[in-house]
Amino acid sequence: MNLNDLQTPVLLLDRTRLMANLSRMGDKATAHGVALRPHLKTAKSADIGRLATAGQPGGITVSTLREAAYFLAQGFTDITYAVGIAAGKLDRVAALQRDGARIAILTDNADVARGIAARAKAAGDRFEVLIEIDTGDHRAGVAPDSPALMHIAEILTGAAGVTLRGVLTHAGHSYNCTTADEIAAVAEAERTGAVQAAERLRAAGHACPVVSVGSTPTAVHARDLTGVTEMRPGVYMFNDVFQASIGACAMDDIALSVLATVIGHYPNRGEILTDAGGLALSKDRSTAAGPRDVGYGLAVGLDGAKLPEMHVVRVSQEHGVIAAAPGAGALPFASLPPGSRLRILPNHACMTAAAYDCYQVLEGNRVAATWPRVNGW
Amino acid sequence: MNLNDLQTPVLLLDRTRLMANLSRMGDKATAHGVALRPHLKTAKSADIGRLATAGQPGGITVSTLREAAYFLAQGFTDITYAVGIAAGKLDRVAALQRDGARIAILTDNADVARGIAARAKAAGDRFEVLIEIDTGDHRAGVAPDSPALMHIAEILTGAAGVTLRGVLTHAGHSYNCTTADEIAAVAEAERTGAVQAAERLRAAGHACPVVSVGSTPTAVHARDLTGVTEMRPGVYMFNDVFQASIGACAMDDIALSVLATVIGHYPNRGEILTDAGGLALSKDRSTAAGPRDVGYGLAVGLDGAKLPEMHVVRVSQEHGVIAAAPGAGALPFASLPPGSRLRILPNHACMTAAAYDCYQVLEGNRVAATWPRVNGW
Repeated sequence: MNLNDLQTPVLLLDRTRLMANLSRMGDKATAHGVALRPHLKTAKSADIGRLATAGQPGGITVSTLREAAYFLAQGFTDITYAVGIAAGKLDRVAALQRDGARIAILTDNADVARGIAARAKAAGDRFEVLIEIDTGDHRAGVAPDSPALMHIAEILTGAAGVTLRGVLTHAGHSYNCTTADEIAAVAEAERTGAVQAAERLRAAGHACPVVSVGSTPTAVHARDLTGVTEMRPGVYMFNDVFQASIGACAMDDIALSVLATVIGHYPNRGEILTDAGGLALSKDRSTAAGPRDVGYGLAVGLDGAKLPEMHVVRVSQEHGVIAAAPGAGALPFASLPPGSRLRILPNHACMTAAAYDCYQVLEGNRVAATWPRVNGW
Repeated sequence: MNLNDLQTPVLLLDRTRLMANLSRMGDKATAHGVALRPHLKTAKSADIGRLATAGQPGGITVSTLREAAYFLAQGFTDITYAVGIAAGKLDRVAALQRDGARIAILTDNADVARGIAARAKAAGDRFEVLIEIDTGDHRAGVAPDSPALMHIAEILTGAAGVTLRGVLTHAGHSYNCTTADEIAAVAEAERTGAVQAAERLRAAGHACPVVSVGSTPTAVHARDLTGVTEMRPGVYMFNDVFQASIGACAMDDIALSVLATVIGHYPNRGEILTDAGGLALSKDRSTAAGPRDVGYGLAVGLDGAKLPEMHVVRVSQEHGVIAAAPGAGALPFASLPPGSRLRILPNHACMTAAAYDCYQVLEGNRVAATWPRVNGW
């Protein structure tokens, strides 16, 4: 099967680029002497998880308990659930552990820590917990120098059936950078914050074996990870236009795209219409604030066809309007007749991939495999 | 089962509000003397499709061929596929027709029309085709007064096995309005453009039994639909904050919400964190340009709890940061402890619902049913 046999819109994954991306990040981890615990929230695929953990300790990161259950069923047992837990989710965590998983859960909240302790005591389950540290992203986490850090640690270590496993941080503010130097500075803040938190815990007599950091930009541009034990990047497997725009990858490293079909021509306004709209691409506009705003995606030809730069300038649910980028010249309508196909590189691979239940895995233009994804919660 | 037994994030549908929304739109269609051919791209549910077509001729509108196949399997045979067709999709259309569907396909392109004619001739299939008219939205369609309209009609009516069924338009630019009067003006432009196109076709001797219009705002605010035969609104079933912001519904008409759990407290910056992020809510920002920007959704309490107005101000994949609306006062942290739940009303119901494989259907706070959805392509 090749690209013209597929029904559109459909999600394509270039195996060669995927493997190169995985290899490059594996090398980064090795060079820094840290474990790579890949975040599988982007890929949500056991096929990719197996490739991403090759040569690594085998632990993975997930963003939902449905992912945890799926990956456990596929043989992954060492799982970090890197979104703050709520007491109402502990039953599912305990059930997965009874089925063979070792799950690290996460919190930055003393009330939640007390809830974990109470649940462990009441039901006799064991929970391993990471404390989330805010190293500048201000999404979640306690400050490395905060009293709250020590307070949460004391609740956890004082509770029967609960193990404090360490600290975890995510420097999501690396996404606001525009240069490698800026990202490297965020990576250093991520490292020093996590290590400071770990050292405070250890100084107070707590074990803190895990010091976990991670975002794709900081994993790519970190210069020193002394004191860190693992990193958890995720989107590096696929990359996207946004990652390229901040220098976390090259455009040629983008492994994911959406195959779309041309369904309309509007030469009077310089636009073509495709069947890849807001659901097929997501409404992510992360390139909007950056140096290269591609709308809802960057459209490219098949087979390396030379075309002017084209952006998805408007979307509705199942419609995507494509125009030439400003200054790129006229759209080549004759090269893109109705029924012809384009590939659209996503702004944000995690969001785009989530609309699909599988990947069509390409070797060149041949569909070599179909890999399922696990979506939802 | 009630709201506290559900795992979050999860999609809730208030049955009472749904039924009121369906009834109100049915009454509109009756008052105008047109058929209601509900667009099921929003609901993607046979349970809802059966309710939405009650008392109507029974025809439905879909946005994907996967929806067409699903609804056919559920007993819906009269289907309009209201996204421009490509020749490469005709095999699937023909297969659905052999299975009992009567599908109206859509184009605004002479090359596509020739492709339909060629496919009908080569394989002996029959296709019924609507010509898409641009009544001001400038997404797709030929102008009502264009030579292209007549040219496409001639290709279709001259082809063996092809029937020209009529014209179809979608006044998506009603979404740019801010008052009922503005929407009524767009509705009138939608009507006059579609009717003008139909009359030109009839004057040239073509049959044109179908004159199809539709968007939720224009369906709500149209004052006269003379000459129109059917309307195809979709989001009216659920409504959303955006529809309320342009006056297409009241806030109390919003039937869809996402149930989320509080997982973090950040009093120093006046924010709480929930487990409903960019995937659970979508990244739709359609309220951004309007008079009431609620971020990625409007958070409300359970059980009618009185809380200040709260917006989802930032999202990442599985995290949603909630803050009080400007001027609404302080977030009531004590009323929203970790583990407590909120409902989030979506900006754009079509986009938000697409992340879920089912609805939890509520009667009051009790889960009365679970209705599956059909996603993907």
